[in-house]
Amino acid sequence: MRKWFLVAAGALLIAPGGLWLITSAQAPVGAALKPAAQFTNDQLMRPENYREWIFVGCPVTPNDMNNGHAAFPEFHDVYIDRTAYEEYARTGTFPEGTVFVKELVSVGAKQAASGKGYFPGKIGGIAAAVKDSKRFGGDRNGWGYFNFGEAKTASVMGAADCNACHKQNAAEDMVFTQYYPVLGAAKAEPKAMPPEKTEKGTTSRGYTY
Amino acid sequence: MRKWFLVAAGALLIAPGGLWLITSAQAPVGAALKPAAQFTNDQLMRPENYREWIFVGCPVTPNDMNNGHAAFPEFHDVYIDRTAYEEYARTGTFPEGTVFVKELVSVGAKQAASGKGYFPGKIGGIAAAVKDSKRFGGDRNGWGYFNFGEAKTASVMGAADCNACHKQNAAEDMVFTQYYPVLGAAKAEPKAMPPEKTEKGTTSRGYTY
Repeated sequence: MRKWFLVAAGALLIAPGGLWLITSAQAPVGAALKPAAQFTNDQLMRPENYREWIFVGCPVTPNDMNNGHAAFPEFHDVYIDRTAYEEYARTGTFPEGTVFVKELVSVGAKQAASGKGYFPGKIGGIAAAVKDSKRFGGDRNGWGYFNFGEAKTASVMGAADCNACHKQNAAEDMVFTQYYPVLGAAKAEPKAMPPEKTEKGTTSRGYTY
Repeated sequence: MRKWFLVAAGALLIAPGGLWLITSAQAPVGAALKPAAQFTNDQLMRPENYREWIFVGCPVTPNDMNNGHAAFPEFHDVYIDRTAYEEYARTGTFPEGTVFVKELVSVGAKQAASGKGYFPGKIGGIAAAVKDSKRFGGDRNGWGYFNFGEAKTASVMGAADCNACHKQNAAEDMVFTQYYPVLGAAKAEPKAMPPEKTEKGTTSRGYTY
């Protein structure tokens, strides 16, 4: 039992600098995580801790540039779950189970010490996208879209409400990667991440735990 | 040895859903991390993996709203290191060693399927702020500011170049928390984070590993 236990956990070393968990290259950390998308009776449960995922980009569609009523007011803080990020960086594709969260934030100011512009104000509701080809086949093209606002659960939106526009306008697999430069950098970056990174308390993507 | 080893690591359980590492409430994960700020000969080394830290907010000062030349063009994607985030959420103050990274991103488009606005383009250089009251005393008010651009190391900027403006305009301890709503939410959130969160493969702040 103990031997198996240690093999499963990889190796734990006590180094002078502290405690490191070294994960084996064959067992990506993602495999040990609870999937980011959790459903109950076909309702997506509000993702937890998404602010601790990976931020990918922040378009802003201010009300004052959209006749007072932006479709998605106003900042769109977009996050991808960490497992999907790691997988996307490695393979260049979004794995099944990928979750994006878009958190809407109002514009709080248009002038600050750093100049004129748009400055975040108050956090609003969230929306989410989940890649699940079995659940969201046909004209949903593999993705389900959910508008939570402040709710704890959400039903999938109609294909005409979200999927059609994503299909027509998003650069890559229904995702607006053209506005998420962090994802482009992640795909390009593995070359610059030497394998020994995995031997210093980090995963293959360099997460430090 | 084995017993001590297990005590140090907390408890590892193999659950049906996967492998969980349970960290003890007495030993915050932060204590095991390499400090986010690493100096060599008084030069700050370019922070690694800051995109895997916590995103706090994204002001945008577009060139076209600043006579063609914003002081910090254009999106400011701001991150805080994870240890400092956890500590700030718990205590409401930025601990010694706190690091912020500001990554500049150009505006790539002003019109998209979601409306008119500002949409991220290309990633530019980074700047960083480090709280270290011993290194940055006097009129630096406890913080050092560093402009890396694309460089691997950076010298601290003069107090008149950065600190004076932060001191005069930032809402909280030299930090522009008024534009970083995620930090406000983190301070308010611990009440909503029941202690049992720490028993499901998460740290006290709910990081899932």
